[in-house]
Amino acid sequence: MPGGDVTDVFAGVADRVPGALADHLRTVRLVDHHVHGAFNKPVDRATFEASINEGSTDPVSDFMTMFDSPLGLAIRRWCAPVLGLPPHAPADDYWARRSELGPDELTIAMLAPAGVSRWVIDTGFKGDLLTTPDQLAELSGSPASEILRLERLTEDLLESGTTPDDFPAAFRTALQQAVDAPNIVGTKTIAAYRVGFDIDWSRPTDAAVVEHARALAAQGGALRVDDPVLIAFGVHEAAEHGLPIQVHVGFGDRDLDLHRTDPLLLLPLLRTMAPVPVLLLHCYPFHRQAGYLAQAFDHVNFDVGLAINYLGSRSTALVGEALDTAPFAKQLYSSDAFGPPELHLLGAVLWRRAMGLVLGEWVRTGECGEQDAIAIVDMIGARNAARVYSL
Amino acid sequence: MPGGDVTDVFAGVADRVPGALADHLRTVRLVDHHVHGAFNKPVDRATFEASINEGSTDPVSDFMTMFDSPLGLAIRRWCAPVLGLPPHAPADDYWARRSELGPDELTIAMLAPAGVSRWVIDTGFKGDLLTTPDQLAELSGSPASEILRLERLTEDLLESGTTPDDFPAAFRTALQQAVDAPNIVGTKTIAAYRVGFDIDWSRPTDAAVVEHARALAAQGGALRVDDPVLIAFGVHEAAEHGLPIQVHVGFGDRDLDLHRTDPLLLLPLLRTMAPVPVLLLHCYPFHRQAGYLAQAFDHVNFDVGLAINYLGSRSTALVGEALDTAPFAKQLYSSDAFGPPELHLLGAVLWRRAMGLVLGEWVRTGECGEQDAIAIVDMIGARNAARVYSL
Amino acid sequence: MPGGDVTDVFAGVADRVPGALADHLRTVRLVDHHVHGAFNKPVDRATFEASINEGSTDPVSDFMTMFDSPLGLAIRRWCAPVLGLPPHAPADDYWARRSELGPDELTIAMLAPAGVSRWVIDTGFKGDLLTTPDQLAELSGSPASEILRLERLTEDLLESGTTPDDFPAAFRTALQQAVDAPNIVGTKTIAAYRVGFDIDWSRPTDAAVVEHARALAAQGGALRVDDPVLIAFGVHEAAEHGLPIQVHVGFGDRDLDLHRTDPLLLLPLLRTMAPVPVLLLHCYPFHRQAGYLAQAFDHVNFDVGLAINYLGSRSTALVGEALDTAPFAKQLYSSDAFGPPELHLLGAVLWRRAMGLVLGEWVRTGECGEQDAIAIVDMIGARNAARVYSL
Repeated sequence: MPGGDVTDVFAGVADRVPGALADHLRTVRLVDHHVHGAFNKPVDRATFEASINEGSTDPVSDFMTMFDSPLGLAIRRWCAPVLGLPPHAPADDYWARRSELGPDELTIAMLAPAGVSRWVIDTGFKGDLLTTPDQLAELSGSPASEILRLERLTEDLLESGTTPDDFPAAFRTALQQAVDAPNIVGTKTIAAYRVGFDIDWSRPTDAAVVEHARALAAQGGALRVDDPVLIAFGVHEAAEHGLPIQVHVGFGDRDLDLHRTDPLLLLPLLRTMAPVPVLLLHCYPFHRQAGYLAQAFDHVNFDVGLAINYLGSRSTALVGEALDTAPFAKQLYSSDAFGPPELHLLGAVLWRRAMGLVLGEWVRTGECGEQDAIAIVDMIGARNAARVYSL
Repeated sequence: MPGGDVTDVFAGVADRVPGALADHLRTVRLVDHHVHGAFNKPVDRATFEASINEGSTDPVSDFMTMFDSPLGLAIRRWCAPVLGLPPHAPADDYWARRSELGPDELTIAMLAPAGVSRWVIDTGFKGDLLTTPDQLAELSGSPASEILRLERLTEDLLESGTTPDDFPAAFRTALQQAVDAPNIVGTKTIAAYRVGFDIDWSRPTDAAVVEHARALAAQGGALRVDDPVLIAFGVHEAAEHGLPIQVHVGFGDRDLDLHRTDPLLLLPLLRTMAPVPVLLLHCYPFHRQAGYLAQAFDHVNFDVGLAINYLGSRSTALVGEALDTAPFAKQLYSSDAFGPPELHLLGAVLWRRAMGLVLGEWVRTGECGEQDAIAIVDMIGARNAARVYSL
Repeated sequence: MPGGDVTDVFAGVADRVPGALADHLRTVRLVDHHVHGAFNKPVDRATFEASINEGSTDPVSDFMTMFDSPLGLAIRRWCAPVLGLPPHAPADDYWARRSELGPDELTIAMLAPAGVSRWVIDTGFKGDLLTTPDQLAELSGSPASEILRLERLTEDLLESGTTPDDFPAAFRTALQQAVDAPNIVGTKTIAAYRVGFDIDWSRPTDAAVVEHARALAAQGGALRVDDPVLIAFGVHEAAEHGLPIQVHVGFGDRDLDLHRTDPLLLLPLLRTMAPVPVLLLHCYPFHRQAGYLAQAFDHVNFDVGLAINYLGSRSTALVGEALDTAPFAKQLYSSDAFGPPELHLLGAVLWRRAMGLVLGEWVRTGECGEQDAIAIVDMIGARNAARVYSL
């Protein structure tokens, strides 16, 4: 266990954040409503650097280092002290110190100061490189809930021998099992990666679903759902079962067509689906559009997770913009950390700091009362997630 | 008549706004170039809360209150003192006090401190719940001009027995009457709600217009124009008659496809129409695009009304972005208030405050002179509207 | 030679920018990686005003002056002292003083304080009104490199008698000559103006290129390439020859469909082209999208040139947003100055000031170390350009 501590999240800006608000933000326990596991194996520097570049699917080029990025600066600023180094320790020093620790040591060190009371974990991707929900819960001392990936469910069913004719019923049975499973609190679609949002979102008939499942299954081997009919089917079925639905929106790797993940393209779905909670994830650079949808539809909520980490010190501006138009009951906190446990910590540190700066300014200039600001923190930091997922 | 006063618009930020600029912004009389009536009947709390949610067309859900939103905070901050309550009075206290007053008392109380010298009123929607222009003028002590809704005109003509064959001439006659009417200073299109902007904006022939009018009239009953040909006809005819044309852009309720109201989609129209003043209204979150169009076309102007209210304290950032690229002669002030007279007041308070903060920073850091800043206030606050509408 | 000096770029904000960072930003020599010539003839005021309106292709209307714009304020603020006038000199005074000087005197006066060590000049447009690269180098005392316009090359070849059958080979020969020419360091496409980005970006066959060249040549006279096949051919050939490719993105005059220049529409090209450096130019208001692409693709870089000038004091916010997600190795400085030499100066002044304010805040609040900030300045200001263009 490293000897360091995370620096006070208001270091350098303490005069801008009124005392009670600052104290609350330092200590409030968050629900990280969209997060993945931490690395469960040692990684080399190239893997680490690639894992702090969200957009690229290639190794980082020789001519640069991802430490020279907003996220890289934030790691050196906020994570170095956790490992007993001074803030802004050079990248090589950070890497040398980090390499002395095992993956569990790192995860324990980083997750404790995140101050997260519950992790809601998406297990749908590269699960073998990452801690399981149980492992993350044990390493962090906080419980973990799970999210069921809808496209993964379709693939699993068809790969494991469900016939296309049986697929619609089998999918519904699996969703009902999810409803009944105490650890599963919602579902997720990665339509953004598979088809984009500019598809026909109407609810397909079972006959159409069977036909499209047959075409997919005929491909054999490891299946990849990239069929609008099967994706729309999954989303509508999850909604009909009353399950919350997370939707990857915006910022992601270059496999997606970012402009086809503008959440406004979901309007035909949002207008017609069963009104279960919809959680628009990330949303950058369409976060203002997401906030608008959260005002326009009772069942729509959103976060700016992932982007908070990647913007580093710029996340203060982002958190401000995310507060533009959405009712405060409709926004959630998440880190979307994946891999390096630095990301599980940074999401919380940067969010607390940004909320303190944005709301602190409101309080100092008299735009709202300090207790109002604290109530907003509680809603976005934990209460809305508790309501949405019935935690 | 309530005993309170609106708080000084620079309370809490007085040190950031140089004195002469601040004094000017406190007192300058504004032209509210796009506004609706105030409620002329008492409303219950559910109606009030729904009326401070622009995006949704449903009642506000039980799990939340719209007071927990940027606009809700702004109402508690700036309108509570007008009703004799302290700033940030709790929502229930605000509602209790508000309920003691009749609709006219509320309107009188809120409109006086708005400091508006002229209201340019869009009477096209739900007129029976709202004060008429004459009533608003009487309650506020400032004159009101009117805007003619083009789609409403089409519907009125066809509903009242104009034959499709006579429709083009009747439409032109009505426009000429509008030109001659001293109280009517412009027109408005809600193409955003009816067809989106990605339509064929070429000027239709009268034969085509007659044919489409016939198809619409054949529907009978209360007509609803959602036909690109009839909408393009209305816009081009208004332009040919030399009438300014307001265009609803962006932020509105969820009946519109927000992404199809990006003002850049109007380029084919803007390039070819008769160059009467075009007023792009609201524009959020496409306000930077609107500012660009205001630089690119002599006849294009814009505002960020409606959004200023809904962003509350965040409107300072919005007002800043609206100053990005547009010549100062091409932006206007509006509240787009509709219903609660709090909105007629807040538009003015938040705009004055935001302009003071943005321009005050320019002056304090030497980016411009204080008289330059005052001149910008005058242009956007009143002079541009006087020019555009020939007031 | 005028007697004035440019004001210290941190006048009015010196307390916000730590000393070593400020000193570095005052003196660091920049590579202006995308710029045009300065006027080489006297211009009248109407021409000058039109030349500080990027969006419009018309003269500035009588009802306004472009001095009443963010750029106009910046000229009065930063360029007036260069001509011996006080900051914020009235527009008429500025014009009177400016008119006393010849074009070369103006250029000499404005370019020296820009602190540019190398100009990378796009000579593709209206070359006869502007200084040549040699002239600009002589007037500024700094060397100039050149950029080859791909569409201009196609037009030149076909206008000068290259047959359609010979065109593909002739184009390749010309590119190879560019590779071998020491003064040419890259190419540029203005696909934004000619076809938009939503085209088929696949690499065409030579047979298709010949066919399309034949159709273009058949038009006779001064040719204008607006054919997706010929434009895609040019881009892919430049990439195959290893030449960096500048791409006009976003902000430009109204001849382009701004929404069809969203750089995300380039994804099909970026994913498949030979990975030579791509330089996304300007990008406003899609600069966040451009920053994302710079993270997602090793070969993609971007700038916010042109927009920095046009936003004037608002450029600080823009420069901040441009630092959202891109690795610092992937952003470059440019002015995109064209015509008035004020623009060659302002680009540098406003960029230095904005970087000082944004990074100064990071340093003061402990988000990064001062040496980190200086390293970021060096990367964006000069080093990245040196790498990308092999200067």
